[in-house]
Amino acid sequence: MIYFRNDYSEGAHPKVLQALVETNLVSTPGYGCDEYCACARELLRERFACPNADVHFLVGGTQTNLTAAAAFLRPWEAVIAADTGHIAVHETGAIEATGHKVYVVPGVDGKLAPDAIRTAVRDHQTGTEEHMVLPRMVYVSDSTELGTIYTRAELQALSDTCRELGLYLYLDGARMAMALTAQGNDLVPEDFAQLCDAFYLGGTKNALLFGEALVIVNNALKPHFRNVMKQHGGMLAKGRLLGVQFAAILQDDLWLQTARHANELAQRLAAALTAMGVPLYAASPTNQVFPIFTNAQVEALRQNFSFEFIARVDENHSAIRFVTSWATRPEDVDALICAVRSL
Amino acid sequence: MIYFRNDYSEGAHPKVLQALVETNLVSTPGYGCDEYCACARELLRERFACPNADVHFLVGGTQTNLTAAAAFLRPWEAVIAADTGHIAVHETGAIEATGHKVYVVPGVDGKLAPDAIRTAVRDHQTGTEEHMVLPRMVYVSDSTELGTIYTRAELQALSDTCRELGLYLYLDGARMAMALTAQGNDLVPEDFAQLCDAFYLGGTKNALLFGEALVIVNNALKPHFRNVMKQHGGMLAKGRLLGVQFAAILQDDLWLQTARHANELAQRLAAALTAMGVPLYAASPTNQVFPIFTNAQVEALRQNFSFEFIARVDENHSAIRFVTSWATRPEDVDALICAVRSL
Amino acid sequence: MIYFRNDYSEGAHPKVLQALVETNLVSTPGYGCDEYCACARELLRERFACPNADVHFLVGGTQTNLTAAAAFLRPWEAVIAADTGHIAVHETGAIEATGHKVYVVPGVDGKLAPDAIRTAVRDHQTGTEEHMVLPRMVYVSDSTELGTIYTRAELQALSDTCRELGLYLYLDGARMAMALTAQGNDLVPEDFAQLCDAFYLGGTKNALLFGEALVIVNNALKPHFRNVMKQHGGMLAKGRLLGVQFAAILQDDLWLQTARHANELAQRLAAALTAMGVPLYAASPTNQVFPIFTNAQVEALRQNFSFEFIARVDENHSAIRFVTSWATRPEDVDALICAVRSL
Amino acid sequence: MIYFRNDYSEGAHPKVLQALVETNLVSTPGYGCDEYCACARELLRERFACPNADVHFLVGGTQTNLTAAAAFLRPWEAVIAADTGHIAVHETGAIEATGHKVYVVPGVDGKLAPDAIRTAVRDHQTGTEEHMVLPRMVYVSDSTELGTIYTRAELQALSDTCRELGLYLYLDGARMAMALTAQGNDLVPEDFAQLCDAFYLGGTKNALLFGEALVIVNNALKPHFRNVMKQHGGMLAKGRLLGVQFAAILQDDLWLQTARHANELAQRLAAALTAMGVPLYAASPTNQVFPIFTNAQVEALRQNFSFEFIARVDENHSAIRFVTSWATRPEDVDALICAVRSL
Repeated sequence: MIYFRNDYSEGAHPKVLQALVETNLVSTPGYGCDEYCACARELLRERFACPNADVHFLVGGTQTNLTAAAAFLRPWEAVIAADTGHIAVHETGAIEATGHKVYVVPGVDGKLAPDAIRTAVRDHQTGTEEHMVLPRMVYVSDSTELGTIYTRAELQALSDTCRELGLYLYLDGARMAMALTAQGNDLVPEDFAQLCDAFYLGGTKNALLFGEALVIVNNALKPHFRNVMKQHGGMLAKGRLLGVQFAAILQDDLWLQTARHANELAQRLAAALTAMGVPLYAASPTNQVFPIFTNAQVEALRQNFSFEFIARVDENHSAIRFVTSWATRPEDVDALICAVRSL
Repeated sequence: MIYFRNDYSEGAHPKVLQALVETNLVSTPGYGCDEYCACARELLRERFACPNADVHFLVGGTQTNLTAAAAFLRPWEAVIAADTGHIAVHETGAIEATGHKVYVVPGVDGKLAPDAIRTAVRDHQTGTEEHMVLPRMVYVSDSTELGTIYTRAELQALSDTCRELGLYLYLDGARMAMALTAQGNDLVPEDFAQLCDAFYLGGTKNALLFGEALVIVNNALKPHFRNVMKQHGGMLAKGRLLGVQFAAILQDDLWLQTARHANELAQRLAAALTAMGVPLYAASPTNQVFPIFTNAQVEALRQNFSFEFIARVDENHSAIRFVTSWATRPEDVDALICAVRSL
Repeated sequence: MIYFRNDYSEGAHPKVLQALVETNLVSTPGYGCDEYCACARELLRERFACPNADVHFLVGGTQTNLTAAAAFLRPWEAVIAADTGHIAVHETGAIEATGHKVYVVPGVDGKLAPDAIRTAVRDHQTGTEEHMVLPRMVYVSDSTELGTIYTRAELQALSDTCRELGLYLYLDGARMAMALTAQGNDLVPEDFAQLCDAFYLGGTKNALLFGEALVIVNNALKPHFRNVMKQHGGMLAKGRLLGVQFAAILQDDLWLQTARHANELAQRLAAALTAMGVPLYAASPTNQVFPIFTNAQVEALRQNFSFEFIARVDENHSAIRFVTSWATRPEDVDALICAVRSL
Repeated sequence: MIYFRNDYSEGAHPKVLQALVETNLVSTPGYGCDEYCACARELLRERFACPNADVHFLVGGTQTNLTAAAAFLRPWEAVIAADTGHIAVHETGAIEATGHKVYVVPGVDGKLAPDAIRTAVRDHQTGTEEHMVLPRMVYVSDSTELGTIYTRAELQALSDTCRELGLYLYLDGARMAMALTAQGNDLVPEDFAQLCDAFYLGGTKNALLFGEALVIVNNALKPHFRNVMKQHGGMLAKGRLLGVQFAAILQDDLWLQTARHANELAQRLAAALTAMGVPLYAASPTNQVFPIFTNAQVEALRQNFSFEFIARVDENHSAIRFVTSWATRPEDVDALICAVRSL
C-alpha cells in the first residue's frame, strides 16, 4: 500500500528526529519553559520579523485553533470562516464547544474574499445586534483546505478589511510552508506577521512528529494564553520536544525545503493527470491534488494506494485527494501515475 | 406611535391577567411544582393528545431552545436549522454557547424540506465522521420566521425523514397558534405531538405576559430536564405564574381565538398592501407581513408607526415587517393602510 | 397548608400588580428598551447613588448570577464563594456550565471574610499559576443564605480586600431589602454601589412577580452585557414588565416596607421559638428562621405547614427553615408558634 | 543544575526512542487508526485483562481527564475529587471549562475514602436535587498527587461504594506504574480494569515522550469517545507515535522496571532525609518526596537543584518536592543527599 492519504503518514524528517535523539537525556523544565523552546521562539520571531510577538507551541492544529478562539474571543463573539474552512468542517465542532459560533460564508476555491467578510459583518448590523453574535475573528488558511494559496495582494486586502471592520485576522498555517513554496506565491514569511493578528506555522504536516507554532502579534490577544492552553489540555509536559523540533526544522530553512519537495511531487502528479485528461476538482499549486475519477476507477486505485474521498461529484464520479509530503518518494508518485495510466 | 413591531408589545390578554390577579395571594410551592402548573400540564397533554408527555414551562423562547439543545444533545451532536431559523440568527449564539453547532442549510420560504436534511446528513457521512459533528436534531418553527406555515404533509415528511435518519424533530412553536389558525393550515394540535419528538407552544407572542410550554414526547429526551432548566436559569421561582397563564389561555381555546384575531388583521393589511401594489418579501398567511418599500417610504412610515427592518432589498428598497397580535386594534390597521396609501 | 417554604409562595404586592394591570395595554418596544424600564433604571441609579451605572433587569437570581459570571470573566478566571453560597450549592452548577470554576471557601455564618479571600488568592499564587484558575470575582450575598447580614465595616473590608487583590466584588442581593431592614444593619443602599463592582437588587423574593435588577458600577464590566443576557435566554421579550414592577416597588421605598414586614414576622417567630427553648441552626436577623427539631417534630409540623429541610443535625434532629415574606399574615405566624408550642 | 522537578524532565527511555526511530519512515493511517496502535491496544487489553475495553491514546493527562469528563457526563452531572486531586487544583479549571462541576471533598493523605464519597452524595440528596448537580463520577489518582497509594482493599471499597451509589469510578494513572511498584502495594494491573469504569495508564511521567492510554471498561462510556477527543483537540495526527511508544514500554513490562527505578531512588532519598531528621510533608512510598525545610535551606538548595515548591508550612518552613524518574541517575540522588547533609 502506497500512502497519498495525507501529509502526516510518516514520522519526522531525519534531522528533526536526530535533534530529538541528541537532546533526549538533557534535563529541562517542563511545559515549554526550557531553553530549546526559548531558542525556537527566537528563531520564529526572527524569521517572521515580529520581535515582540508571543510564540506558543502546541501539539496539533485543532488544538491550536480552538485554544485561539477560546482565548481571543469574548462569549458573544464569533468567527467568520469559509465553508471549506477546517474549523467549519473537520474539527467536530471544536470552536462551538468553546461556546463560539462559526459563521460560515461561501469561499471561492477555498479562499475568503473581503466581500464575503463585508457581507457577513453587514448581516450582523441590522439594528438587532444584541440578538446576534458579533463577528470578531476571521479564519483563513494558507494553503487552504483545497490546496489553493493567497497572493500577497489578497492577504493584504483581507487584512485591510479586517482592520477597517475591527476584526482579528487569524491564519491557520498548517500548510503555510507549502503555500510559501508554491508556484504563484508572492508572500514571504514576514507578511504573515505584518498582516495577521495571529497565525500558526504548522509542523505536523511538514516533517515534525507533531507541533504547531502559534505566533500572536496583536498585543490584545496575548494575556493569559498559556492558562487557556492548559485549560484545554494543550500544554505539553515535555514541551521542549516542540522547541527542539521547530529549532531543527527552522535551521537553514529546512521547513521550506521539505515543503518544496512535497509541492514538486504533487505538481508532477497533477501535470501527469492533466496530461491524461483527468479533471481536477480544485486547482491546487501545493501538495494536495484533487482528481476526479469514476467510482470504478476510484475502487481500482484503492487496491494499491491509500487516499481520501473528498466529494461525490455526480452519480458516477468522485473527487479524491492525493497528498504528498516531505517523505514522499518520487518512485511512489511514478507508480501512481503509472497506475492511473493503466486504469 | 402605533406599534406593529412585534407580537409582544403589550401585556397579557385580560382573561390571562385576570387569572393572575385572582390567584395572586394563594400560597403555592415554587418552581412549577404547584397545582396550577399541574393543571395546565394536564390541559396541554389533553389538547395535544400526548398523555405521557413531559411538559415544562419556561419564560421565553430562546431559553426554551437553548435548554432543549443542552438537555437533548451529547457534546458531539449538532442541530440542523434553516438559514432563517431563530436559533441560527437571532439568539446571539445561544445554542453554540451550550457547546453545540447549528448546521445551517438553505430554507425555502423559511421552511426546511426533507431534501435539505438528507443533504445535511450526507454531508456528515464522508468517512471522516469522527472529525465532524453528528447532526442529531432538526429545528423547525411553525409558523416560521417568515410567517409561512407547514402543511400536514410537509411536517409528516419531515418527521418521517427524521425518524429514518435517527434525528430528533424539534419544533419551535413560538407562533404555533398563528400557524394553526392560518388560512391553508391543515395541521391540528395533535399532529405536533405525533410528529415531533419535542415542541413548544408559545405564549409570549400570543397573549401571555410571558411563557412557553415545552412538550417532550420522546422518552429518551425526558430525564433530568429540570436540572438543565435550573442550570441555565430557566426555572421560574414563582413558576405557578406560568401554569396560571397557560390554564387561562387554554380555556375554551382562547389561544386559538387570540391568534385568529392577529392573523385576520395581518391578512387584511396584506390584502390592502397587495391591492396597492406593494410587493411582499415573503408570502405569509399569518400575523407577520413583510412589505417592500422604498427607503424614503420606510422613513416616512417611521414617523407614526413602529416596525422592524428586515432586509435590504436593493440600494433603494427595504423589506420591513408589520406584526399584529391579539392586542392589535382594527383601527390601527386601518390607520396604517391609510398611511401607506398616502405615501 | 400554611406556607413558610420560601419568600416567593405568592404573587406580587397589590401595588405592583396594580401597576401591571394599569399598563397592560400600553404598547412599548420589547426587551427592556421601553420607557418603564428607563424610568426604573433611573430610579435605581438615584436610590443607589450611582448615576453612571448600567442597570439590567433579569427574571431570576440564578439567571442573573450566571449571566454576570459569563459576561464579567475570561475563561481562566474563577469566582470565590462561601460554602453556603447560592452559586456553590443551589444553582445546578450554573456557573460551571458557563465554563468557570467556583472556588469554595469556608464561610462563617454564611458570610465571607477578607481572610478567606486572601487565603484563596494565596492558594493560587504558588508559582504554577498557569496551571490554576485565576480568582477574579468574589461572590457574596446579603442577606446570606443563612439569613445573616454584613455590617458596613465588614462589607468595606471585603471591598478593600478585593480592590487590593484585583478582584471584582459581586453581591447577590436576592434578599438585599431584608438585609437593609434588619436589626443590626448599618448599610445603606448607596453603600452597595460604592463598595461593589456589581450587585443586584432582588425583586422575586420581595413582592414582585419576578425580577432582579443588576447594577453594574465598574465600567470594565459593562460592555455587551445585553448580548450575554440574550445568549443565555435572559432577555425578557416583554421587558417592560420588569421596569413596571421595579418602578412600583421603588415608589416610596415600598421595597423596604415589604421587607420590614417579612423581617418583623420572622423575628417574632424566632423570639417565640427561642423562648420555647428551640435551638436555632443559624442566627438570622432577617426573614429566614432555622429552628432545630427532632425528626418526629418535623414530621408533625409537616401536617399543616410547608417548609424546607435544611440539614441533618444528628441522627434524631434536623434543621428546617421557615421563611416569611411581604405576604405572610401575622395570624399564620401565630398559628405556627401555637403549633410548635403543642409539639 | 540537577533536576528533581518532575518526572518529565527528560525525553524517552532509549528503547522507546529506538522504536520511534525504527518506525519513523513507515507509512500509516493517521489518528491512531494504524497497526501500531492496534497492537498497543491489544497489549493493554491483555495486560489489564479487559478484552472488551476500548483503549484510546491521548497526549497528556489534563487532556485525558477533560475529555473523559466531557464524554462521560451529562450536563447536570459532576465529578467528586479530593482537595488535592489534579483536576481540582492544577488543570486551570479544565473540567469546569467542559461545563461540569468538580465537587471537592477532603482527602486523607491525598486519597479519597468511601465515607467522603457517601457524604458528598448525601449532600446532594436534600430534596432539592433539581437545584443541585448530580455527583456521577469519582476521580481518584494512584499514586496520588502526594505520592501515596491505594491498597487493593481501599480501591475495592471505593469501587463497591461507587457501584452502590451509581457513580463511575475513574482513575488517573499518570503514575500508576509507580503505584504498582511501590512498597506496600498489593494491586495488580488487572485490578484497575475490574474495579474502575475507566482509567488511564500514564506514559508521560514514565519514560515516554508523551502519551496516556485511556482504558474504558464500562460499555456505557464508550460511544463516540473519539468524536469528543477530536472536539477537544486530543486526536493526534500521527497517532501511531502513541502506539509505537506504548508497545515499546509494555514489552517485557519495561513500564514497571522504569517505575521501580524511580521509586527506589526516591525511597533512598527519603530514607536519607529521614535519617537526617528532615520531616516529610507526606509519607510517599513512590517517586515523589516531600521534605520540609527552612526557607533559607530551600533557597540554598535552589542553587544547584531544580524542584517544586509545594506548600508554606509556617512562616519559616516550606514543603518542597523532589521527584525521581526512570532517567534519574543514582549519583544525582547522592549529590542531593550530600547537599542536604551540608545545609
